[in-house]
Amino acid sequence: MFSVSLGSDNHSGVHPAVWKALLKADEGFTPAYGEDPLTLKVLNKLELLFGGDCQACFVMTGTGANVVALQNLVKSFNAIFCAQTAHINVDECGAVQKFTQARLQVIPTPDGKLTPELISPYLLNNRDQHHSQGKVISIAQSTEYGTLYSIEELKVLADYTHSLGMLLHIDGARLANAAAALNCSLKEITKDIGADIISFGGTKNGLLFGEALISFRPDLTSDIRFYRKQCTQLFSKMRYISAQFDVYLEDELWRKNASHANEMAALLGNFLKKIPEVELIQPVEVNSLFVRMPRNSIEELQEKYHFYIWDEVRNVVRLMCSFNTTEEHIEEFIFDLKSSLAQSL
Amino acid sequence: MFSVSLGSDNHSGVHPAVWKALLKADEGFTPAYGEDPLTLKVLNKLELLFGGDCQACFVMTGTGANVVALQNLVKSFNAIFCAQTAHINVDECGAVQKFTQARLQVIPTPDGKLTPELISPYLLNNRDQHHSQGKVISIAQSTEYGTLYSIEELKVLADYTHSLGMLLHIDGARLANAAAALNCSLKEITKDIGADIISFGGTKNGLLFGEALISFRPDLTSDIRFYRKQCTQLFSKMRYISAQFDVYLEDELWRKNASHANEMAALLGNFLKKIPEVELIQPVEVNSLFVRMPRNSIEELQEKYHFYIWDEVRNVVRLMCSFNTTEEHIEEFIFDLKSSLAQSL
Amino acid sequence: MFSVSLGSDNHSGVHPAVWKALLKADEGFTPAYGEDPLTLKVLNKLELLFGGDCQACFVMTGTGANVVALQNLVKSFNAIFCAQTAHINVDECGAVQKFTQARLQVIPTPDGKLTPELISPYLLNNRDQHHSQGKVISIAQSTEYGTLYSIEELKVLADYTHSLGMLLHIDGARLANAAAALNCSLKEITKDIGADIISFGGTKNGLLFGEALISFRPDLTSDIRFYRKQCTQLFSKMRYISAQFDVYLEDELWRKNASHANEMAALLGNFLKKIPEVELIQPVEVNSLFVRMPRNSIEELQEKYHFYIWDEVRNVVRLMCSFNTTEEHIEEFIFDLKSSLAQSL
Amino acid sequence: MFSVSLGSDNHSGVHPAVWKALLKADEGFTPAYGEDPLTLKVLNKLELLFGGDCQACFVMTGTGANVVALQNLVKSFNAIFCAQTAHINVDECGAVQKFTQARLQVIPTPDGKLTPELISPYLLNNRDQHHSQGKVISIAQSTEYGTLYSIEELKVLADYTHSLGMLLHIDGARLANAAAALNCSLKEITKDIGADIISFGGTKNGLLFGEALISFRPDLTSDIRFYRKQCTQLFSKMRYISAQFDVYLEDELWRKNASHANEMAALLGNFLKKIPEVELIQPVEVNSLFVRMPRNSIEELQEKYHFYIWDEVRNVVRLMCSFNTTEEHIEEFIFDLKSSLAQSL
Repeated sequence: MFSVSLGSDNHSGVHPAVWKALLKADEGFTPAYGEDPLTLKVLNKLELLFGGDCQACFVMTGTGANVVALQNLVKSFNAIFCAQTAHINVDECGAVQKFTQARLQVIPTPDGKLTPELISPYLLNNRDQHHSQGKVISIAQSTEYGTLYSIEELKVLADYTHSLGMLLHIDGARLANAAAALNCSLKEITKDIGADIISFGGTKNGLLFGEALISFRPDLTSDIRFYRKQCTQLFSKMRYISAQFDVYLEDELWRKNASHANEMAALLGNFLKKIPEVELIQPVEVNSLFVRMPRNSIEELQEKYHFYIWDEVRNVVRLMCSFNTTEEHIEEFIFDLKSSLAQSL
Repeated sequence: MFSVSLGSDNHSGVHPAVWKALLKADEGFTPAYGEDPLTLKVLNKLELLFGGDCQACFVMTGTGANVVALQNLVKSFNAIFCAQTAHINVDECGAVQKFTQARLQVIPTPDGKLTPELISPYLLNNRDQHHSQGKVISIAQSTEYGTLYSIEELKVLADYTHSLGMLLHIDGARLANAAAALNCSLKEITKDIGADIISFGGTKNGLLFGEALISFRPDLTSDIRFYRKQCTQLFSKMRYISAQFDVYLEDELWRKNASHANEMAALLGNFLKKIPEVELIQPVEVNSLFVRMPRNSIEELQEKYHFYIWDEVRNVVRLMCSFNTTEEHIEEFIFDLKSSLAQSL
Repeated sequence: MFSVSLGSDNHSGVHPAVWKALLKADEGFTPAYGEDPLTLKVLNKLELLFGGDCQACFVMTGTGANVVALQNLVKSFNAIFCAQTAHINVDECGAVQKFTQARLQVIPTPDGKLTPELISPYLLNNRDQHHSQGKVISIAQSTEYGTLYSIEELKVLADYTHSLGMLLHIDGARLANAAAALNCSLKEITKDIGADIISFGGTKNGLLFGEALISFRPDLTSDIRFYRKQCTQLFSKMRYISAQFDVYLEDELWRKNASHANEMAALLGNFLKKIPEVELIQPVEVNSLFVRMPRNSIEELQEKYHFYIWDEVRNVVRLMCSFNTTEEHIEEFIFDLKSSLAQSL
Repeated sequence: MFSVSLGSDNHSGVHPAVWKALLKADEGFTPAYGEDPLTLKVLNKLELLFGGDCQACFVMTGTGANVVALQNLVKSFNAIFCAQTAHINVDECGAVQKFTQARLQVIPTPDGKLTPELISPYLLNNRDQHHSQGKVISIAQSTEYGTLYSIEELKVLADYTHSLGMLLHIDGARLANAAAALNCSLKEITKDIGADIISFGGTKNGLLFGEALISFRPDLTSDIRFYRKQCTQLFSKMRYISAQFDVYLEDELWRKNASHANEMAALLGNFLKKIPEVELIQPVEVNSLFVRMPRNSIEELQEKYHFYIWDEVRNVVRLMCSFNTTEEHIEEFIFDLKSSLAQSL
């Protein structure tokens, strides 16, 4: 349909090394549902990568990762705090409410990031039987708004969360992009800052499908395999997720893919900054850009490129780079944008 | 782990033609979530195959197929009738209860098949506010007990279901095996007999993953895409399910794979019938066999082969054949079984 | 504990006429669950009072009234829009999420009232499968913030709701106070303005317990008795709710009680307006007042009177009048407030 | 409608002493939701009656008592075991499934009573992720089938339950009838036998409404007040339940009422045993009788008396006695039954 998409990191295909790993795993018979030796080996690798003393498992989709994780932490009378822009609030068709029956306490933010100051006014009289009891603070790293928590910000938020007797969940659909941008290990932005349960996404970063869940509180998540199965997230032919993660971890393919996507976004951002008719409304920190541009140009560019309008009223679009975005794609897009702007004069 | 598995059709890998189709789909950028042209084309093919005037969509897993389908048909105060051996009753960790909040009315059967006679005593005083209101009769074709409804039995059951003002759901995780065994089209055992919504499984029959849902009552299932997303069953990179189904439908690969599995089961059954120490407790109608055998032999065989004990008390095991089971596997298994029995003398 | 409470209209007892009616109903045997003749008679009266062509039933509690009503209107992938101050958002421990599994779309308001202008920015891209689909706009009349929709405001809101293909639910726990304040019939602020389903509260207005639900869309609520039972809101000895509503409707006891409560609030408001150290932060329209007062006085008065602090930061308290609040209670409270303020000088 | 009902202990009115207590509680203002001194006093009395070291609270209905209790004990992937005749299985319109989302494992019984022998075949391979995990065994004492567990039977069942790592719930809607029949204390058939959580019913035994929940595992039920509120079972004007229980406990009014009902059932049973055309199909142990009688007589008697047909096929009716059933009612019923039988000759 579109030769180039800046619409989503889901629009990209699968990394060649991942296909190779999939085909290699395709031999003979293997026990299903994760009891095969490859799965056990790769989960072990994952747990070591995240610093040990944790519990890893695989699920099929990003929404699945969130609902499986959150069910372990909340009961139906609890509340989960999240940013208004959170994927769990706006992009999962109410999945978290469906699975947990709990209340989402939605908090407006300027940049998609929660802070103690933003959360504090929403703390209800806990222990009063009329109110949903706050139990989880859920953030995304990097955020759905293309922004990034620093390690220090994460530590402050985790400490604040725990001081409230609550738990910190990180939606890590783009955790790879965050670690690449911060030039740190995955452990440094999860276990080390005090996260309680996190996901580590693969689908948006070059895998065919598959997400990992890492619990740093195995004492709280001993039922996770039952929730995974009951929530339709247990894959029967598990070896094929494991094989993908095996190669994803090898030589840090996850970081290579994410770094590339981030770099392409930075390149695109640098071009855009020089065009006076457009405005970057968030800093370019990972692989997405939020850009205000003239309505005419949006419409013209959408004939050739796939991307989403983020804010219809303010004419803000979201541009997303991926592991297979190229410099040529960027240059072509910038060229077409400039042509469109020139015509409008 | 095991060179040969008779444990599950999930233990098999992926058919080579499916890999080819997957790799072919892996080009450039494509809209996500099913808006790509390949998906639209394949869904259209599927709808034609099932006789038209129906609505097809893809989900990721078999449990997912069941819960997405059933949610369209029931409210929380309803009851869903199924056989005691039904996958939705025993093998989904309570997923149907979780998603629908409805009551499963479980009915004991001799062979995994429901009939009007078996259902009738369980019909509650409908319209009385104290009772869950029966709304769906859910069957599997072929059943979890390796048995098969004839076309005539399906018609009788569908008519009975509709005469009660209820709807007929068919869990078709092994619908291909049923159509292969009955030597009929998929349409003849679904649309033509009066089914309301069915699934058509791929994962157990040579695909990497992916199941299709076909609704013959689009008037009742207009919300299906919301349920699919909310239930974590919407795959982002949808083209890769579509590509698999494309080749699955081409030249009836689904039937070839299923026929082969059925034939291997028949072969195994014929061998077993000649061994006096073992007993087939259900007729061999599709690709699984339920066999009573001496405890000693069960234990010895399990050292080399993977298979499940179906009934610990009666020493009944389930043996399952798949698209990649070979005559050599069968002969080897029979040889080892006979050796084990001989030693026990 | 407290000789005078301005804490809640739940702190009051039961009107003497209600006791009389209860004792009168206490004769011999009666069918349970609403099949008795008194229940049928009173429901019929109620339906006539609300203009006919509607369907009435009784439930036990106000939270019960809301969850039974809303379940008829939404599926789990829907969204229910309400004011941030709504009882269903803050005071029901997440009951609506529990029962409906749907998403609450919470909207900040200055005065507890929704308007098309306030709602409009929160309308999601309906029909997109990633988003909860807006289905119900839920308001309270009078509101939890002591404010009142005019008949014209209700009409505008109902028309707007229906233009969006949505339905209007009114939490009428204090509907009597609203009709008393507007000096209109119950029908004029429910059926006539285009409400789809409403509750008509009794517990807060002099009954022992019992709330009525009136559906103006019987076509949408044909399952209401199943939801009522499943939600634990079906009272077995129903005649005792019916007897209370019988006398509640007779000679408009509901209006007398509500008018009295409103008058006492007006009296209290008039006194407060003359005291420069305190501020009414909402107009006094029904039976509650929201008053900013010095922290010292709040604490001193709470030793003798029961009332809630509404906003800890801004020192706003809620004062609630009821059918059995007297002028003496008001005068005593004002006297004590003035004394407290004088001491602080 | 019917001058005499043998239909349900819900068809009776309210005991005079209960009305007196209600009117006495009706003075001035009282904090709502259970924070009043009367409630605290009566809950304390209840806890002492059940042997201390337990946690009591009030709910509004019997179905409410069951769902509030069970939610504390199970997660959605659990299974609750109960008899096929259990109220939670057949008479609550699927409330337990709605509130817990868990699976009911229904077990056929000859007499409404569970035993280790009956339960044992239904124990699933616990810890396997595909199956709902058994967590609670739920019984009724006395049962819905008019039968009674002996103290010894209860002990055996509780020990068995705990040996499985499961918890024992007792639906005590008619616990008073059981204690009266066994001539023992309430503690002896709850705390002493090892029950984990129980209800103690009032509505069916002379109260206007109100049920008590007693948890003997406060460590497991610390969230009970949130579940109660979220499930619409928190009564605002709580003092009026407490007042009823106050008089219910005083001089063991609960036992007097229940003993009377039991005695009337025994009397009716003795008469019926002498009539050759009818058959008692369960022993008369508490206040209900299950009687097979000629169809003609059933129909004739139903013109004058209210009672339910329990089994349409076998012509079995349920006759229920209550605190206000009199010897005259019994004699009149027997007279009419005999007349009807004589006419049929």
